[in-house]
Amino acid sequence: MDAKVKSAEVNDGVLFLGIDGGGSKCRARLVSAGGDYLGSGLAGPANPVNGIEAAQESIIRAALLALQEAGYDDGAIDTVVAGVALAGVNIPLLWRAINDWAHPFRRMFLTTDLHAACLGAHRGGDGAVIVVGTGSCGYASVGSRSATLGAHGFQLGDKGGGAWIGLQAVQAALLADDALGGETALLDAIQAFYHCRVPELIERLGGARSCEFARLAPLVFDLAARGDAVADTILRDGAAYIDALALKLLDLKPPRLSMIGGVAASLLPRLRADIAAQICTPLEPPEAGSIHFARSEYARVTAAGDGKVLRA
Amino acid sequence: MDAKVKSAEVNDGVLFLGIDGGGSKCRARLVSAGGDYLGSGLAGPANPVNGIEAAQESIIRAALLALQEAGYDDGAIDTVVAGVALAGVNIPLLWRAINDWAHPFRRMFLTTDLHAACLGAHRGGDGAVIVVGTGSCGYASVGSRSATLGAHGFQLGDKGGGAWIGLQAVQAALLADDALGGETALLDAIQAFYHCRVPELIERLGGARSCEFARLAPLVFDLAARGDAVADTILRDGAAYIDALALKLLDLKPPRLSMIGGVAASLLPRLRADIAAQICTPLEPPEAGSIHFARSEYARVTAAGDGKVLRA
Repeated sequence: MDAKVKSAEVNDGVLFLGIDGGGSKCRARLVSAGGDYLGSGLAGPANPVNGIEAAQESIIRAALLALQEAGYDDGAIDTVVAGVALAGVNIPLLWRAINDWAHPFRRMFLTTDLHAACLGAHRGGDGAVIVVGTGSCGYASVGSRSATLGAHGFQLGDKGGGAWIGLQAVQAALLADDALGGETALLDAIQAFYHCRVPELIERLGGARSCEFARLAPLVFDLAARGDAVADTILRDGAAYIDALALKLLDLKPPRLSMIGGVAASLLPRLRADIAAQICTPLEPPEAGSIHFARSEYARVTAAGDGKVLRA
Repeated sequence: MDAKVKSAEVNDGVLFLGIDGGGSKCRARLVSAGGDYLGSGLAGPANPVNGIEAAQESIIRAALLALQEAGYDDGAIDTVVAGVALAGVNIPLLWRAINDWAHPFRRMFLTTDLHAACLGAHRGGDGAVIVVGTGSCGYASVGSRSATLGAHGFQLGDKGGGAWIGLQAVQAALLADDALGGETALLDAIQAFYHCRVPELIERLGGARSCEFARLAPLVFDLAARGDAVADTILRDGAAYIDALALKLLDLKPPRLSMIGGVAASLLPRLRADIAAQICTPLEPPEAGSIHFARSEYARVTAAGDGKVLRA
């Protein structure tokens, strides 16, 4: 189909794009004004903590890929109403840097990755979500009330997340190497993982980023399953935090609670049974949540007769 | 006194210099071949973890200041036998970078800051030392046996040290802010310290260096003394680790055990009474320990007829 012809066919000339950007990748999802799925795109890291320009480039790249998949040319980006959900924008400085960006969209609405994940998990409705991927956090939106828990970042928090699990494992292994902590198979396993002994391990991992430590999380789950007491204690500690976080979210009486992220499936059997029983499958992905957000914000500002809808 | 005349008077033309370089400063101490104190120098950071060239510059600067205080001109640096003790050189890559350096000394002998601290604390004799400053570690040298414990760096270990104490306090404050950890006066105290609330605090401290967190340690000791249970638990946990580390060192039957570093005095009353009772005052500073090391290494290589004593 000819891109220009297709562009002209769109209702009001508007397309809705949802972006979900995190520390490892950026996903885009494009739908028509009527809600029909048109295409998707996948680009590199988009957490502005690791570089604002890199995040902006990933967002544009994912958007253009989604437009291309849908058969539009790049120029159609100025017909796009984008809901952009990013990790890291809970930090005020980064929120401002992205929100003030001279973006190429007709209109951009910014929110947190948590908010979009929640909207996606509950198809735009009320609910709560726990994200345990590289980091950890919780979010709930019920009526006019909302709450964010955690999201403090790797160094200061993120308990129960993959990077936290990996870091605890390395710390425990080094204590064991000094015979100042419980004996654990983690020591040999981590040395084997990096093909080196302790002094080089300290050199390799000292100051490493969260994604490096998160690579070790599967190894911790594996050893805990095989009866390693130190690995098991790390996971119990992490699961206890996620239990407490879930209870805080359930205090707000959300109609649904979902748990997503790379560690969610492994951690679920370690949660308290009564809490695990309340966790529902997410209905849609976070980038679909970003579209729900973009639609409601766009409806709000157009209903308010906001003269700034068109950037030009 | 004319510098050239003085230079010619020195026994064998050799002066002994001791260097103690860490993350915040570099100290130099100069003595004659006969052991008389000649001068000292103080320069900036010399932990090669934070930059190899910067460490080398600080070492030279501290050395030249010590020579100047002793009345020598800068050229006398090639009469200097230097014992250089540095933090960070337990990492093999950094050891090689400093050891292979085309330094300006007649001869340079490299060792760890821990080794020099131990030699200094026990006036060149056998003994053990615990260092609790920004980080934490232990070292013992008894006869032909030696042991290093800890020294894993801020992110991976350093339990009980100032940076670890500060980081635990920030983590506990953020958990308290989410009502997912015990209530603690640390939350208000840390916010007041940085004149900001939690979201800005995460921005301010996320990814901060060890010295930034170490600044918070006095605040934790202060609140624990005033009965804050969370602050007290952090210090108990840190002290328990230092107790265990001390017991490991005492297993080697060192004739003396000393504890040094910025947090040592505050932590001492929190150690187990039987352990605290065995801790002796250090006899000399680490840079004097570096001189003991330089003397014995120089005697060893000259006795062995090492033809490479003169670098030229």
